[in-house]
Amino acid sequence: MRALTFVPGSKGTLEVREVPDPEPGQGELLVQGLALGICGTDRELAEGDYGWPPPGEERMVIGHESLGRVLRAPDGSAFSPGDLVVGVVRRPDPEPCGACRRGEFDMCRNGRYTERGIKELDGFGSELWTIEAAYAVRVDPALGELGVLVEPASVVAKAWEQIERIGSRAWFEPRTLLVTGAGPIGLLAALLGRQRGLEVHVLDRSPHGLKSSLAEELGAIYHSSSTLEDFREAKPDIIIECTGAGQLVIDSLTTTAAAGIVCLCGLAPGGRAHRVDAGVMNREIVLENDVVFGTVNANLRHFRAAAAALAEADREWLGRLITRRVPLTRALEAFEPAEDVKAVIDLTA
Amino acid sequence: MRALTFVPGSKGTLEVREVPDPEPGQGELLVQGLALGICGTDRELAEGDYGWPPPGEERMVIGHESLGRVLRAPDGSAFSPGDLVVGVVRRPDPEPCGACRRGEFDMCRNGRYTERGIKELDGFGSELWTIEAAYAVRVDPALGELGVLVEPASVVAKAWEQIERIGSRAWFEPRTLLVTGAGPIGLLAALLGRQRGLEVHVLDRSPHGLKSSLAEELGAIYHSSSTLEDFREAKPDIIIECTGAGQLVIDSLTTTAAAGIVCLCGLAPGGRAHRVDAGVMNREIVLENDVVFGTVNANLRHFRAAAAALAEADREWLGRLITRRVPLTRALEAFEPAEDVKAVIDLTA
Repeated sequence: MRALTFVPGSKGTLEVREVPDPEPGQGELLVQGLALGICGTDRELAEGDYGWPPPGEERMVIGHESLGRVLRAPDGSAFSPGDLVVGVVRRPDPEPCGACRRGEFDMCRNGRYTERGIKELDGFGSELWTIEAAYAVRVDPALGELGVLVEPASVVAKAWEQIERIGSRAWFEPRTLLVTGAGPIGLLAALLGRQRGLEVHVLDRSPHGLKSSLAEELGAIYHSSSTLEDFREAKPDIIIECTGAGQLVIDSLTTTAAAGIVCLCGLAPGGRAHRVDAGVMNREIVLENDVVFGTVNANLRHFRAAAAALAEADREWLGRLITRRVPLTRALEAFEPAEDVKAVIDLTA
Repeated sequence: MRALTFVPGSKGTLEVREVPDPEPGQGELLVQGLALGICGTDRELAEGDYGWPPPGEERMVIGHESLGRVLRAPDGSAFSPGDLVVGVVRRPDPEPCGACRRGEFDMCRNGRYTERGIKELDGFGSELWTIEAAYAVRVDPALGELGVLVEPASVVAKAWEQIERIGSRAWFEPRTLLVTGAGPIGLLAALLGRQRGLEVHVLDRSPHGLKSSLAEELGAIYHSSSTLEDFREAKPDIIIECTGAGQLVIDSLTTTAAAGIVCLCGLAPGGRAHRVDAGVMNREIVLENDVVFGTVNANLRHFRAAAAALAEADREWLGRLITRRVPLTRALEAFEPAEDVKAVIDLTA
């Protein structure tokens, strides 16, 4: 079969290659790969920034935003041939930490997890892949190709779950949400905010265009800006920060209403010094009982919540998030930087 | 009666004056003031930094760390003459926000609360005071004078409650705690950490002496330092930051173990710029699922938890936290800066 592979740590090694078909082990599904979403992490892997091959291997299959169709399922697995499925990305270590032991491998304490397409496990960027039935998530057949958005939505579903659990420490009836960054994560965070009935603001440096239309079609208010200036007076109850940009991160810490929650889920390169009056920042966080938290990855519960949230969403809107479709034969094009929202590789073409 | 009063916003106005005896209203206790603790907030009030007198008044009674003995209690109030009591500091607005309506006035959303001795209500720095029975907290008679520590301990009890509620968002079995700052709040935070069975580290810039002895008698490890250098390798699960010092605040954000919690409860003046690589700070918080939160004030539940925690503690140790006792006649001495832990004014002398 064909697979999109790379040598972790080595730039310029990404290529479509013939590799042996995978054989499902006990309790595993055999899946036909349909689509693969590409995100910032994949671009960093392709740049050689990080990545760890399976033990004893030099090269690995890339890809963690999966969508496939079950070809073969073990008896009693709750899956049948024809089911659309998405694979959970992370796996706990055989000697799990306390969090991993409870299925909360997204909160792993010792860092000894593995990840499909990133860390020691082949990814989903191939014509066929296998997956443990326990780590496969069924996708509403009506979603079709849009199921490839389940993985990014799982990150957002976890963010929302954490916001709500942390918020429940005290009375919490948020009314307003600001999302910074109108990429796939930001727009999906805005979607889940609208599903919760919040007044949603989306801020992105892009001028009005596709991203502003996508925000506005959700019923959100779009701010074409790279600062939080618009929110100095009417501070939002929640900020979901999806850019990782240093100055936005710093400013978000002091731009929520009292008992506000800032959810950090963006990543961006460091290396730039910012000037911060830490005493003033601290005073604002203390006197307002504010919370700031970071979130990464997602566990099985979050993947299921994501699949459910997407099944409730407007499919036409979801479809507009996929701004580029590239056949596997030209897969490398999906890694080129572009002003799109989500690039997807068609593994059947 | 004599009362320690000041003109909010005016430095140098603090003085002991004769004022009319207070008259308890319906549902209120009449209390003989026994002791008044003095903290950084009181010193800032005395410096004229902030403070708001009762409507129509120029001068107000200072003091929010109270201890008194009930002289008169309304029938059916659950209090009797002779009971030792402490007063809750904050009151909700007559038109309460959602949090205040639920008794969570420590989490007030609109800032329209009042506070005894700070904001629009006379404090507890007088030979007699009154208090609504619903805002009085009984103190174990065995604690005696140590009951004056209930208010600072209430701030710490709230911090711990919030740490535990936030921690319960996922698997959370912390083993190690770092407390920065060995003032009364820091040492009480360490006490409650030890009561929870944690390995506790206390960091303070003071050389070994009284503060280190107090920490070590708790079974904590004392670090005479003004940086977090000692914790770069073995990062604590929880940091309770009690100094408000800008660089310690900044460094604490990246010095917890995975899924760590930083509780900010110190305040210090701002006005100094710190250089922060916000991209790196953000990446660490995101990739480790870390939480940072601020906490201020305490509600009735926290005062009760504080009274219970102190009742369980070693009384000799608690007594050593009170390093200066000043009679009301010389009350101003308690506001002079000194290297002590807690200064208390004896309202009966």
